[in-house]
Amino acid sequence: MKHDTRGMLEQVATGRLSVDEALLHLKTEPFDDIGYAKVDLHRKVRQGSPEVIYGEGKSVEQIAGIIDSMKKHDQEHVLITRLSQEKSDALSAYHAHNYNKAARLATVGEMPEPDGIGKIVIATGGTSDIPVAEEAALTAEFLGNQVVRLYDVGVAGVHRLLANRELLMDAAVVITVAGMEGALASVVGGLVDCPVIAVPTSVGYGASFGGLSALLSMLNSCASGVSVVNIDNGFGAGYMANMINHIAAR
Amino acid sequence: MKHDTRGMLEQVATGRLSVDEALLHLKTEPFDDIGYAKVDLHRKVRQGSPEVIYGEGKSVEQIAGIIDSMKKHDQEHVLITRLSQEKSDALSAYHAHNYNKAARLATVGEMPEPDGIGKIVIATGGTSDIPVAEEAALTAEFLGNQVVRLYDVGVAGVHRLLANRELLMDAAVVITVAGMEGALASVVGGLVDCPVIAVPTSVGYGASFGGLSALLSMLNSCASGVSVVNIDNGFGAGYMANMINHIAAR
Amino acid sequence: MKHDTRGMLEQVATGRLSVDEALLHLKTEPFDDIGYAKVDLHRKVRQGSPEVIYGEGKSVEQIAGIIDSMKKHDQEHVLITRLSQEKSDALSAYHAHNYNKAARLATVGEMPEPDGIGKIVIATGGTSDIPVAEEAALTAEFLGNQVVRLYDVGVAGVHRLLANRELLMDAAVVITVAGMEGALASVVGGLVDCPVIAVPTSVGYGASFGGLSALLSMLNSCASGVSVVNIDNGFGAGYMANMINHIAAR
Amino acid sequence: MKHDTRGMLEQVATGRLSVDEALLHLKTEPFDDIGYAKVDLHRKVRQGSPEVIYGEGKSVEQIAGIIDSMKKHDQEHVLITRLSQEKSDALSAYHAHNYNKAARLATVGEMPEPDGIGKIVIATGGTSDIPVAEEAALTAEFLGNQVVRLYDVGVAGVHRLLANRELLMDAAVVITVAGMEGALASVVGGLVDCPVIAVPTSVGYGASFGGLSALLSMLNSCASGVSVVNIDNGFGAGYMANMINHIAAR
Amino acid sequence: MKHDTRGMLEQVATGRLSVDEALLHLKTEPFDDIGYAKVDLHRKVRQGSPEVIYGEGKSVEQIAGIIDSMKKHDQEHVLITRLSQEKSDALSAYHAHNYNKAARLATVGEMPEPDGIGKIVIATGGTSDIPVAEEAALTAEFLGNQVVRLYDVGVAGVHRLLANRELLMDAAVVITVAGMEGALASVVGGLVDCPVIAVPTSVGYGASFGGLSALLSMLNSCASGVSVVNIDNGFGAGYMANMINHIAAR
Amino acid sequence: MKHDTRGMLEQVATGRLSVDEALLHLKTEPFDDIGYAKVDLHRKVRQGSPEVIYGEGKSVEQIAGIIDSMKKHDQEHVLITRLSQEKSDALSAYHAHNYNKAARLATVGEMPEPDGIGKIVIATGGTSDIPVAEEAALTAEFLGNQVVRLYDVGVAGVHRLLANRELLMDAAVVITVAGMEGALASVVGGLVDCPVIAVPTSVGYGASFGGLSALLSMLNSCASGVSVVNIDNGFGAGYMANMINHIAAR
Amino acid sequence: MKHDTRGMLEQVATGRLSVDEALLHLKTEPFDDIGYAKVDLHRKVRQGSPEVIYGEGKSVEQIAGIIDSMKKHDQEHVLITRLSQEKSDALSAYHAHNYNKAARLATVGEMPEPDGIGKIVIATGGTSDIPVAEEAALTAEFLGNQVVRLYDVGVAGVHRLLANRELLMDAAVVITVAGMEGALASVVGGLVDCPVIAVPTSVGYGASFGGLSALLSMLNSCASGVSVVNIDNGFGAGYMANMINHIAAR
Amino acid sequence: MKHDTRGMLEQVATGRLSVDEALLHLKTEPFDDIGYAKVDLHRKVRQGSPEVIYGEGKSVEQIAGIIDSMKKHDQEHVLITRLSQEKSDALSAYHAHNYNKAARLATVGEMPEPDGIGKIVIATGGTSDIPVAEEAALTAEFLGNQVVRLYDVGVAGVHRLLANRELLMDAAVVITVAGMEGALASVVGGLVDCPVIAVPTSVGYGASFGGLSALLSMLNSCASGVSVVNIDNGFGAGYMANMINHIAAR
Repeated sequence: MKHDTRGMLEQVATGRLSVDEALLHLKTEPFDDIGYAKVDLHRKVRQGSPEVIYGEGKSVEQIAGIIDSMKKHDQEHVLITRLSQEKSDALSAYHAHNYNKAARLATVGEMPEPDGIGKIVIATGGTSDIPVAEEAALTAEFLGNQVVRLYDVGVAGVHRLLANRELLMDAAVVITVAGMEGALASVVGGLVDCPVIAVPTSVGYGASFGGLSALLSMLNSCASGVSVVNIDNGFGAGYMANMINHIAAR
Repeated sequence: MKHDTRGMLEQVATGRLSVDEALLHLKTEPFDDIGYAKVDLHRKVRQGSPEVIYGEGKSVEQIAGIIDSMKKHDQEHVLITRLSQEKSDALSAYHAHNYNKAARLATVGEMPEPDGIGKIVIATGGTSDIPVAEEAALTAEFLGNQVVRLYDVGVAGVHRLLANRELLMDAAVVITVAGMEGALASVVGGLVDCPVIAVPTSVGYGASFGGLSALLSMLNSCASGVSVVNIDNGFGAGYMANMINHIAAR
Repeated sequence: MKHDTRGMLEQVATGRLSVDEALLHLKTEPFDDIGYAKVDLHRKVRQGSPEVIYGEGKSVEQIAGIIDSMKKHDQEHVLITRLSQEKSDALSAYHAHNYNKAARLATVGEMPEPDGIGKIVIATGGTSDIPVAEEAALTAEFLGNQVVRLYDVGVAGVHRLLANRELLMDAAVVITVAGMEGALASVVGGLVDCPVIAVPTSVGYGASFGGLSALLSMLNSCASGVSVVNIDNGFGAGYMANMINHIAAR
Repeated sequence: MKHDTRGMLEQVATGRLSVDEALLHLKTEPFDDIGYAKVDLHRKVRQGSPEVIYGEGKSVEQIAGIIDSMKKHDQEHVLITRLSQEKSDALSAYHAHNYNKAARLATVGEMPEPDGIGKIVIATGGTSDIPVAEEAALTAEFLGNQVVRLYDVGVAGVHRLLANRELLMDAAVVITVAGMEGALASVVGGLVDCPVIAVPTSVGYGASFGGLSALLSMLNSCASGVSVVNIDNGFGAGYMANMINHIAAR
Repeated sequence: MKHDTRGMLEQVATGRLSVDEALLHLKTEPFDDIGYAKVDLHRKVRQGSPEVIYGEGKSVEQIAGIIDSMKKHDQEHVLITRLSQEKSDALSAYHAHNYNKAARLATVGEMPEPDGIGKIVIATGGTSDIPVAEEAALTAEFLGNQVVRLYDVGVAGVHRLLANRELLMDAAVVITVAGMEGALASVVGGLVDCPVIAVPTSVGYGASFGGLSALLSMLNSCASGVSVVNIDNGFGAGYMANMINHIAAR
Repeated sequence: MKHDTRGMLEQVATGRLSVDEALLHLKTEPFDDIGYAKVDLHRKVRQGSPEVIYGEGKSVEQIAGIIDSMKKHDQEHVLITRLSQEKSDALSAYHAHNYNKAARLATVGEMPEPDGIGKIVIATGGTSDIPVAEEAALTAEFLGNQVVRLYDVGVAGVHRLLANRELLMDAAVVITVAGMEGALASVVGGLVDCPVIAVPTSVGYGASFGGLSALLSMLNSCASGVSVVNIDNGFGAGYMANMINHIAAR
Repeated sequence: MKHDTRGMLEQVATGRLSVDEALLHLKTEPFDDIGYAKVDLHRKVRQGSPEVIYGEGKSVEQIAGIIDSMKKHDQEHVLITRLSQEKSDALSAYHAHNYNKAARLATVGEMPEPDGIGKIVIATGGTSDIPVAEEAALTAEFLGNQVVRLYDVGVAGVHRLLANRELLMDAAVVITVAGMEGALASVVGGLVDCPVIAVPTSVGYGASFGGLSALLSMLNSCASGVSVVNIDNGFGAGYMANMINHIAAR
Repeated sequence: MKHDTRGMLEQVATGRLSVDEALLHLKTEPFDDIGYAKVDLHRKVRQGSPEVIYGEGKSVEQIAGIIDSMKKHDQEHVLITRLSQEKSDALSAYHAHNYNKAARLATVGEMPEPDGIGKIVIATGGTSDIPVAEEAALTAEFLGNQVVRLYDVGVAGVHRLLANRELLMDAAVVITVAGMEGALASVVGGLVDCPVIAVPTSVGYGASFGGLSALLSMLNSCASGVSVVNIDNGFGAGYMANMINHIAAR
């Protein structure tokens, strides 16, 4: 972006670009304004990743329109999160896409080959946490990472986790996905020497308070090298892990 | 108690006790009313344990007065919790007692020999949890239990806990004392086959919210056989563990 | 478990077991990995109780698969909690089981004879608390305890509770199940000389905040010998009571 | 008040009062504006009680000025709540008054003779609740009620409460003052046939959350005929009880 | 009750009642144990009011069974709160009753003539608060009070309230029912010289947090003589108001 | 209003108005009492705006009745907020109106021409915030303001906002509508030199806690000149903005 | 700002400004970077108001340094909020300033003459709210507004407020400052036809929860034209009121 | 660790190590048990970083003892967090160390040369957030990273942040430290293409609720690639950033 600014100013200095054109360029270029949305077209350049659409609270027509805008600007890979089965079905009339029901996630375009530094291990406390874990896994795979799934290794049976310690030690990043007491993040954080992204889930009842208990537990983790994303935010964890996994390749 | 009621009614039936006396007896006997407190004198009979005085919010004079009332009724063993160093010093003018500063706990009378079923293991997540753990330990010892201390075995370094697994497996009851994420209860709960009493502590900062995080974490424990007492309630955990440890002896 | 480790190491020392086999054994033995779940097969040995499946958030196929894995390893008694009527119906196609609709609980295999130290009394504040109480009762019975039900004895009519005082005094463990103000735990805790497990329920409206009010009330109980489990966690209370009731028999 | 309005309008109609004077009267009469406070001078007429000054957050000079204003308008009886010992000492230079340190409450003028319908019984859960109870008791006595103190009758030793049942049955109104689990309100509410005012106190620690636990517990009371005032609001309870006790005398 | 206890003891003293019979009597008399409920049969004697059934969480069969038990013991007047239209319809097959859909409240037996000291005025902040107000109104009428309804007089248009000041000044008790900011209680409390019962409602959205905002507002009322019941607890307010209104008649 | 009072008093002084008539006038004039509602008829005079009906919790019949009352008193312009599609359909049988489904808002009477000082710019963080923004926009337009919509300019892509800085600098008032982290208010507040009204929305999941996160964020805005309305309260923001925009015209 | 950008670009286009200089200018001009602070020097141009320093959490040296930077750039009027008496004393060694202890606010430079559209009325619920009100008042006066103080007019004595209705009706903006139940905002909002800024205060105890109760109450205000700032944020309210009061003068 | 296990088992297999010795080794090696603490001696091997001591809640003697244990095992570099000035002074009698008062952080041993992939940029919203930022900065420097400080660039003056965009674009990891509304994380997250670690601070007042507002805001960040640590946890952010910055070097 910085080079663009300098380049444009140099064009102004040499008279190749008028002041008004430069002003316009500075203001309107980086996104496509389609009324209900300002579609970001420079994110790939700026952040190295394709665009992501948050599906909840958007109509199928709005989602389709955003994809239209992207395709018009040569962005062929799109990730849509929190998309219901119904919306996915209706979206098929506009754009071909692959849909994963558990993760409530759709992808437009091909899945890429893994190209990151290492493996991203995704561990869940229980079977009920798998949908959130799959949102993280598919996001990471969509962004070019190799993912290893390690499900149902909650700390109440810590031997299940310890039995997979080699697998954990091999990871470039670990994502821990857990509801209820959320202690998985701390135990894993103490075992590995790589960054751990903790995702609290809303799995549970009573005093789990919709994931609040797991969230607080993870924020208070005594292990170093643990950071936390929003409750049920599998996408955010997958995206963060991808960034870390590609850090040397920037 | 039930036998007393029957016995007294039988005395009434046989005329050995008048109706008015019986009424009076039913109402005034089980405690000594000293105005600001109704000292329970039947607890030892009813619950098998000596009286306990909660020191916070009571003046030294009130505490001394309650001990007076107990001694007058032959209760020589008294436990005083949440007693500040200052109050302990001032109380010395009234009654001899032993004081533990870390646990803020005083005892009147001799400590008994252990007589429970087995050992009570008290584990803490960190060094900062030791004062609460000591409150639990001294309470349990005061009530006749053998206590094993296992401090600083938080789950962020799970090997420290696993290295002491034999010790844990040997316990009749385990008390886990932890602040911050409070995950210790779950991991211990999954390792042992005895009841686990979890004590959240107010140790921590930020999103630990004065122990709330640890409390919620412990209530949501995925391990079976874990129950929880109030934040920093070392006394409550020690008392509960004592009850469980003496259950066969009732 | 500890004997196993030593035994295995002795086999390694005498050459009867290769290093690689030992490593494999240490890691893979204690559970059966069926992808979406790591089925714990040593719990009976380690904790003295059969396996329990938490039904919520698991598909019928997943539940059936876990039971398959258990049966394959000779675990014939299974408890399934938080199972909806619909899932129970669908599960019948895979495994015969008994279903209790109020408690939303299924059992595979015969109910055992009571073999504990004494009786577990389960008291509720009101009629609406009965489903949670039944979850506790059936869990405790499934684990080999004699259960006495004492329903609708809330403290707003304390004579109903006092009239059953003999029954309460007879218990080895009491479970109190109450929503709204949750005061039952304190009153019972003051009457009996055995451990009391308090279960807050989400019964109520307004400032009951889904059981939070009862939970806080129980955690703050002024009675000694009371500990608390999660809101609506009848299973947890039944399991904990069972542990206490069998403590001398370990 | 309504008669005043009519009376004044009649004076306007008959020319005895000018329009401007009437306007002025309507606006300025009912209170004395001393800048930092608008001293209510009609409350005795309007609500049948003397003025009350909330001492916290007011300087000694402000409190003295408000009393000045009252005395100037013939209000000789003043109650000052939440007054620290220091402020009381400093206030002595301005106005003679009686001060109760425990209740942090001062009175100007004589205490009246009881003139209510019946007795107000004030019960506390523990000894630590006495300061709040005394605020309620002195408020009620200042307003002309007979008060009976029944302290340290918490539900964890329910026999202490039952032993005083006759005393409770005799009350016109009962005020229950309790922190921690706050269950006293429910048990008393179920025993008596008169209104119960529940005062949660901030006594306690951990999950008592400054009185929140007791507050929620009292709001969720299963007993009928219980209503609640703010945490530690002994004054409010005493005032409300006084209103009820004088209701037939209005 | 106290006379009964004495009377019975006198019978024991004179041999007219055996000890065992007396014990039995003390324990079983005051309620009818029908398994899922302990029906209180002495409440009318003890508290001067007919029995009330809380309908939520009880099956129609359970409600019908409780009414059966009452009728068998000559209690012909029953109030059922929180009863859905569906349950009311189904209950008709067992017992004739009148049903008010807005208040979700049913009554068995005739409504009595008003016999209290004075009028109970029920004021609401808005139109949406009327269902809770009607629960209070019908409860109070069922218990023998004259009720005056004053709806939609919220403080954002304070002239609507002031225009009805005479009506308010006439009340023996005022019940204020309001959601959102709940300020009605304070303004009314400052206008009248009788007790005010405040009922927060769950009406509202966003930061009303299901009635929490109104609840806190009412608890913090600066007006004296205001006490509070649970969110949406119209019944509780009506019952409390009835108690106050009949206080001189006890 | 003040002139009315004086005028009326002058009429009383000159005998043109009797005392009783004046009293009646003072009390009954400003609203029309239709039982379930007190319809405010002076608001246009008093506050310069037509009446608004909050549709939630009112039946179609009640809403129609309120409109009847207004029309009878010559108020032809009515705004109805939080009206469902179903109620709008049913209301059509009583009164013609325009309905906006996204904003759940209906208007009776013509939309006026803009007559304010300047433009009201309404900015949203995302596409999902548009319904709340439309409630604000239509409210402001209904009250005579020119509205500029600027949607999907959340701070995670701050260039989209900066590209529209001229548009923002031109506003008389800005309304920022955002859920999740709610940071839009702060960034906009720092860019413009006019008042900013912040509306948190309940858009989001997990730790957005129904809009609480955005609400707190906006209240803590470090930018000066930002104030906040209730979660999802588009109407309130539009109304407040209208007041500010017309302030010089009063 | 926009004119600056265009102007600078025009200078670049005509060669009067080099590209590098322009880049530098764009980045470094609008503030003075003094390490621990980036002092905003364009705020007066951009927002029409002098700089404000938030004193809490800054050392006296830091505050003095920021004032130095301002004076160096010809900003002679500075407002410092949340400044303790101690810091004010120490600051005197660096810069002359006026200090108001109640409001904890200092001003550097002369107070200006009022130049706004109309009066800003600041009303408090009680005497204890005056410090926050003074922060608002002095801020507004510092920014060139005429302020009218109306203190201790809480709604529990609504006649005190009504008696000042003319004064309120005269305001261009009203700021209501209230703790406890915070109802003042709603009642005032219903009386006036100008914008109302509500400031909750942390005055109170118990369930006021540090101002949370008043905050929620104000956010839920049923009156239209009310918006809210942070608890105790007198400065924010004064600043917002100033903006509104000067809106026509922009 | 895994190599150790295999190596040790191989020693057992070849008879070089006895079974008992192996058992002992497995259990006691990885830490030094000094009673009140189990000092982790393998962390450097296992996690690639020196040991860290959390200073709060530990006595100076305990801290010194832990350092003793480390030095005895050749760990010469120690970081001590949350250490008060007083404790630092007292610690000097035991061990030489450098102390940073603002960050409340001490280091034993030399600070290393930076050896990470790139720079860690630490940005704060305001001047008051600097202490937490310094804790992060010193931690990262202690672990071998180059740190760039960018203080007082809060979003309410977004030009201060944009002016430093090149600096941000250059970072390998960005740590954003902000209290109040915490929006800095979102704006930075949208500008850069590297991982962002967000640290909420407890700076603020009123509805900042001790950092809760900033915490929620950051968890709800709409920018991708943002994860969050505990309130005021500068150490945790520095440690996590170090892990990410060294990821390619593992």
